[in-house]
Amino acid sequence: MADGRPDFDVHDQRLARAAWSRIAEPGDEVAGALVAALGPCEALDWLYGTLSSQEPAPGAVLAGLGGVGTPRARERLRRATARWAVRATEVDPRRELRVLDRLGGTLLVPGDPAWPTALADLGPASPWCLWVRGALPPDLGARSVALVGARACTEYGRTVATDLAEGLAARDFVVVSGGAYGIDAAAHRGALVGGAATVAFLAGGVDRLYPAGNADLLRAMVEAGGAVVSEVPPGSVPSRVRFLLRNRLIAAASTATVVVEAAWRSGSLSTAARAADLGRPVGAVPGPVTSMASSGSHRLLRDGAVCVTDVDEVADLAGRVGADLAPAHASPCLPEDDLDPVARRVLEALPVRSGAEAGSVARAAGLAPDETRGALGLLELQGLAVRGPAGWRRGARGGRARVGAPDPDAAAGPAH
Amino acid sequence: MADGRPDFDVHDQRLARAAWSRIAEPGDEVAGALVAALGPCEALDWLYGTLSSQEPAPGAVLAGLGGVGTPRARERLRRATARWAVRATEVDPRRELRVLDRLGGTLLVPGDPAWPTALADLGPASPWCLWVRGALPPDLGARSVALVGARACTEYGRTVATDLAEGLAARDFVVVSGGAYGIDAAAHRGALVGGAATVAFLAGGVDRLYPAGNADLLRAMVEAGGAVVSEVPPGSVPSRVRFLLRNRLIAAASTATVVVEAAWRSGSLSTAARAADLGRPVGAVPGPVTSMASSGSHRLLRDGAVCVTDVDEVADLAGRVGADLAPAHASPCLPEDDLDPVARRVLEALPVRSGAEAGSVARAAGLAPDETRGALGLLELQGLAVRGPAGWRRGARGGRARVGAPDPDAAAGPAH
Repeated sequence: MADGRPDFDVHDQRLARAAWSRIAEPGDEVAGALVAALGPCEALDWLYGTLSSQEPAPGAVLAGLGGVGTPRARERLRRATARWAVRATEVDPRRELRVLDRLGGTLLVPGDPAWPTALADLGPASPWCLWVRGALPPDLGARSVALVGARACTEYGRTVATDLAEGLAARDFVVVSGGAYGIDAAAHRGALVGGAATVAFLAGGVDRLYPAGNADLLRAMVEAGGAVVSEVPPGSVPSRVRFLLRNRLIAAASTATVVVEAAWRSGSLSTAARAADLGRPVGAVPGPVTSMASSGSHRLLRDGAVCVTDVDEVADLAGRVGADLAPAHASPCLPEDDLDPVARRVLEALPVRSGAEAGSVARAAGLAPDETRGALGLLELQGLAVRGPAGWRRGARGGRARVGAPDPDAAAGPAH
Repeated sequence: MADGRPDFDVHDQRLARAAWSRIAEPGDEVAGALVAALGPCEALDWLYGTLSSQEPAPGAVLAGLGGVGTPRARERLRRATARWAVRATEVDPRRELRVLDRLGGTLLVPGDPAWPTALADLGPASPWCLWVRGALPPDLGARSVALVGARACTEYGRTVATDLAEGLAARDFVVVSGGAYGIDAAAHRGALVGGAATVAFLAGGVDRLYPAGNADLLRAMVEAGGAVVSEVPPGSVPSRVRFLLRNRLIAAASTATVVVEAAWRSGSLSTAARAADLGRPVGAVPGPVTSMASSGSHRLLRDGAVCVTDVDEVADLAGRVGADLAPAHASPCLPEDDLDPVARRVLEALPVRSGAEAGSVARAAGLAPDETRGALGLLELQGLAVRGPAGWRRGARGGRARVGAPDPDAAAGPAH
């Protein structure tokens, strides 16, 4: 870098975007406005120019920052420029690309075939580029579910996350998460078991597989056709701010976001909030109210998230309309389910063991004798009632009443 | 009973209503239309008249049944009359009132001071009268919560029901339920422990405390100032239809209905449905998705019930606006919660053990040097940062980052 100008080609769009991903923190609105106004190359060119010779601020940028020539816009740009200066003098995207290349990774920029177009919904907060190890599944965001939750999860949350992920993978959904301990790791593992690609968005550089205890899992994901992705270049450390900003990528890259298990202040709630901001469906898995580990999920349910309890319901939340609707839950089908109200009432009034005359059955059922006789004939045809020497009683198929009547004998007394 | 006329005074409103509660099953729409048109006494008088001499159907009744003179209305009334005939010839409400009296009970009819006016929301499906053992708390329905759920509940459901009921009782809510095993019993018990009146609506007569295993509990409720109530007279057996119809009384007598634990086809879901029909708030307590015992609660949550996890949230659901709002959940308050974004970012970039120069901190935080120096001064004042011989590091009050950064050391490296 001579005389304040970098020695890489700022007019190479890939290099310029890679450089911006180092210079400006994710979500830097001023950098977003600058690049939106000038494009990444011209924006970088202007930055280096003004760092060496105080070039005037471009009007289009100031307009994006709150009005041409307003003191507030100029001041925001001045402060941002000061913020970018240190990193701008040090950055060399070619060096970081060499690190990525040694890891077998790829830099993606908007317009590349594998770029997830769903990220465009982030508008000016879109990432400059994505540093990718492995392969992003094509059209990520069209059929993907973010499964997120607490690092400090319970065995319950871990089991549910694994099962949901495995089921989603079997239905060809990409499972997206954050690669962290707890729910994230369980989700990635379940997807691997289900045999589908799964994607982790990291808060730090993809050269450090963070957290270290998940390094083997993250490597296995890359080898299984999935990807480990970051918007910050190799060498970047995960920080709290970056974790929170990273969450917007998980939300934007997923058709729907499901919080599996989260305590009251879990970071995964911010992923759900970003998904809701983007108009994406948000689900939450309930848990015991006695478990503080589910209090954040319940908070989401009170705030309007959809209660999801199995993979069908998650697929319903995320799936294409009509293709993945949750089936109506199957219930045991009992012969008496199809009876009309009169026949049902007669069936209930029938004794199980002893026998009763039709008149006594009518009185117990509160029905007219002719109605009762008609219904008894019908029930007999269906095997639900039998006529014995002592009168009418329930047939072998008549079963026991289930709802509200634990003891059919009590409900089948001879009177009233 | 001579010549088909009863030997009790059909023009005594209490006796007439008591008789109707024996003659017509709960929810009998034709009886409802008849009594609505003529009043209970005239309706009974007409019934006995037509049973002995085929009196013509009153026009007002036929109107209520679908039009004066239409064949359908005449046919409905004819069938109903046949249905009522057997019981009408046998009923003697004076005998049933003597049974109630021996049990220390009271018959309530609309207009009595203790009659729960909230039942009027049931319209033509209102009960004719209530057979009560014990005392109905005044103005039932104004501050009462139905806690309902499965008989086959789990230890989890039982614990939650008991705790909610105890908390509601302590807040002067009447706990209403159905006196059954499982969730109902746990709710009544919790209310007794909480020292408040609790009310059970039974499906059968109040002379039989059903189920037998709960007889002691139901007696204890009566003795503790609560009540055991039925719309059918002593001697009536609980039947499946009566259980389902009884549920409308629980829903109508309660300000809100909460399903604590219910499987997919639990009868308590019908109580929730009736509450929703009446425009009453409906809550459901979530449970583990791995527990089939909560699948009905989760179904309700998907259908729009409010997720309730503690007594504050139930009181919020049922309480008078402004008086019982659930408090915002308390969260541990940490010093860094109040920091502005710049100071927070600087705090995160600070090493925990070693020290770092301000320039290195600025670079790690992605901030301008002057911003960083300003923030460091602020953090020092709050004890969150200290300046040592090796440079800046976190102060004793700086704690550890909680969300998304399990290892602050990793987030506090010297660069990027």
